Amino acid sequence: MDHGEIIQGVLTRVRPTEEERAFIEKLMNDLKTLAEETIESLDLDVRPYFVGSLAKDTYLAGDHDVDLFLAFSPDIPLEELREKGLELGKVIAEKLDTYEIAYAEHPYVRARYRGVSVDLVPCYDVGSWRDVRTAVDRSILHNRWVLENLNGRNDEVRLLKRFLKGINAYGSEIYIRGFSGYLAEILVIKYGSFLDVLEKADFMLRQKIIDPANWLKREHEVAMKTVKREAEADKPLIVIDPVDPRRNVAANLGWEKYGRFYFKAGQFMESPREEFFFPKGQKRGSYLSELRRKGTHLVTLVFDAGEAVEDVLLPQLERSAGGFEKALSREGFNVLGWNVGKAKKAFIMLELDRRERERVRIKPGPEFFTERGRDFYRKNERVWLRGKRLFAEKRVKENVIEVITELLEKNQVALGKGIREAVKEADVLLNYVPKELEDEAYLFLSREKWNLKE
Amino acid sequence: MDHGEIIQGVLTRVRPTEEERAFIEKLMNDLKTLAEETIESLDLDVRPYFVGSLAKDTYLAGDHDVDLFLAFSPDIPLEELREKGLELGKVIAEKLDTYEIAYAEHPYVRARYRGVSVDLVPCYDVGSWRDVRTAVDRSILHNRWVLENLNGRNDEVRLLKRFLKGINAYGSEIYIRGFSGYLAEILVIKYGSFLDVLEKADFMLRQKIIDPANWLKREHEVAMKTVKREAEADKPLIVIDPVDPRRNVAANLGWEKYGRFYFKAGQFMESPREEFFFPKGQKRGSYLSELRRKGTHLVTLVFDAGEAVEDVLLPQLERSAGGFEKALSREGFNVLGWNVGKAKKAFIMLELDRRERERVRIKPGPEFFTERGRDFYRKNERVWLRGKRLFAEKRVKENVIEVITELLEKNQVALGKGIREAVKEADVLLNYVPKELEDEAYLFLSREKWNLKE
Repeated sequence: MDHGEIIQGVLTRVRPTEEERAFIEKLMNDLKTLAEETIESLDLDVRPYFVGSLAKDTYLAGDHDVDLFLAFSPDIPLEELREKGLELGKVIAEKLDTYEIAYAEHPYVRARYRGVSVDLVPCYDVGSWRDVRTAVDRSILHNRWVLENLNGRNDEVRLLKRFLKGINAYGSEIYIRGFSGYLAEILVIKYGSFLDVLEKADFMLRQKIIDPANWLKREHEVAMKTVKREAEADKPLIVIDPVDPRRNVAANLGWEKYGRFYFKAGQFMESPREEFFFPKGQKRGSYLSELRRKGTHLVTLVFDAGEAVEDVLLPQLERSAGGFEKALSREGFNVLGWNVGKAKKAFIMLELDRRERERVRIKPGPEFFTERGRDFYRKNERVWLRGKRLFAEKRVKENVIEVITELLEKNQVALGKGIREAVKEADVLLNYVPKELEDEAYLFLSREKWNLKE
Repeated sequence: MDHGEIIQGVLTRVRPTEEERAFIEKLMNDLKTLAEETIESLDLDVRPYFVGSLAKDTYLAGDHDVDLFLAFSPDIPLEELREKGLELGKVIAEKLDTYEIAYAEHPYVRARYRGVSVDLVPCYDVGSWRDVRTAVDRSILHNRWVLENLNGRNDEVRLLKRFLKGINAYGSEIYIRGFSGYLAEILVIKYGSFLDVLEKADFMLRQKIIDPANWLKREHEVAMKTVKREAEADKPLIVIDPVDPRRNVAANLGWEKYGRFYFKAGQFMESPREEFFFPKGQKRGSYLSELRRKGTHLVTLVFDAGEAVEDVLLPQLERSAGGFEKALSREGFNVLGWNVGKAKKAFIMLELDRRERERVRIKPGPEFFTERGRDFYRKNERVWLRGKRLFAEKRVKENVIEVITELLEKNQVALGKGIREAVKEADVLLNYVPKELEDEAYLFLSREKWNLKE
């Protein structure tokens, strides 16, 4: 099949049906009426806006998250916005099915209504980037810009988003570092179509700077500051936000995810297949066979990480895994790779070159003619010189589990702050994982988890 | 026993008896007469000088090496000295028991006479360091200076030399890097007695510069140049040669040997025992038990190094061992220590942390968006990204013997030039050594070979 045929096939799966559209339209209308009535009844100066992919009609079939922004006048103080905004959200949500309070820069209401998630987010009603006061204020501007510039290419955005999801490069959360929906929309607007964006995967990287709103001309200094800052941080792309020259829309896009996009785009252009959009289930295999094949060893720490949400927990787990890598390498174990995540409990997996080290290590001492040198000489049984430095032999624990236990007891592993105590209480497993981690262990050890090739 | 008693006991063993003295005196007289007659018969302008410990009466009982220097006028060219000097030596040696030609800066005759080794060395008859033309010319000056300054402390020198031999710190050869006889004599002259020298072990090191002939006053610039040069080379001691301000008598003294002297001197001052001078035979033990105790592994390369003499061969072996240490560490094996030497054949011993490594290694690749990156992607089966760099897995040999064989085949070990081909043909043994190397392997693995403690 050629690109056109594949794309037609995919579109039938990602484009919402007429029934779905009607359902969404009705839902939004009802919500809008409800919000307006509530605002009026409370005598507030607030305007409701829909933002996000539903409002822009770039959502994927079946993917319905409503973002209803409650925009207050920029004249009121932040404290008041926070208080009244949450209050308003609650009053609206009372009339929906269920709701809870969620926390971002400020608290907001997350409700459910007719099976759809509805976020009721207070913000300022700003007309320009110069007035932006909170992180969410920009959303209304984003929405407006996309609606003004998309010119009916909504399905192209759907294709690109689905492609990015399929190749595991979608999502700008800090622990994902992929493409955001807004970035996908900008790329389609800039390059014209889904296929055009894919074809530009290499060009974009070389060009580096994408400036659809011409900020480098209109606000040269501000935009250049953004470019410099982001270039210094070595970001793969610098996409100057069409509604705010201070911001790189791709600030959270990591090299790994861009790399996936880069290779997969090339592959799709060469031999298109629907699997890019809808991958077959992950490969399965035995992690124990992988260990035998590679001659390596797997240490898994499993522990209770409490209630922390993923975007807080994952960076902590990553930091801790890095800490183990360093500490173990000082101890003579080579860490070939690590993998972290959360199933029932949080886990850190470490792939090691061996499970046991030699029983002695050579301990370097000070120069022999110093006070500390004479001390070292006295305290050790066998002492010898290399140049002016003394050396001695030190008996050490052999087994990696014992070594890890000792390292943790002596606080010699740099651990993520929030999970420090939990890690110290972890179960440390060697070449064995609980049932629910078996697939994860296989995907890690085989590197299928990150494999860029099919 | 106190120091005095120990010293008396040692003196009875190192001081030559009257009979021995008479034998030496007669020997030297006869050699002198023979040399003078030969010189006269050949009508040469040459003066014979005895130098070395026999001439200075600082030799140890039973230790008789005659150095007879044949001093030519400084007016004749070097080529003539070389030719006529060797010729003269040969004619003298014809009248001795046996002889052979030996090679240093220039060739000389090494003869045997009444069971004693006699070196007949041509040199220039110089009166001052300014006239020195060949390396051996200084010997006559050394001899004269010691005779003028020793003032009857000959036995003190004998004690010091025997002590240095006993603790394995004697000999200024490049592959030993210990104290020379001349340096021992200077130290006794400078500090007064054997015990004084030992007591100054720490002081000397801090003082750093020893200048018995006051060159820093008499020839400030020349002497300062020597001091600077040797200080930059980080020598433990700078002993400005009493007969030549350009030379550090301790230039060949290494930190390891000075360290031995440093600790042993302290120990002897604290608890004197005759064993410092005459150590009991080396400790023996099983190298296999050492390997078990330490949990390490021993790789031994045994090969035929041809006819090379020790001071050429040993540095080559050391360089090669260092080359193996580096190459193996790149391959994931940690070298805890090495030992080289020559028994029947030359050997290089390497103590390793393990005998097998994991079967795969992580291979770092280039940045993904480069030509080489796309190449790397094509050529490898599983490829993943960390940042912008590609990584892949590489299957490797596990066994250290196979790894070493492969390294040698691919010329990936930096080997001493003279033994490169021989090492490539070496037998490579794992956790096993030939009978004649068993003691050596034990002394190495237990580090008794270099142990500064008893």
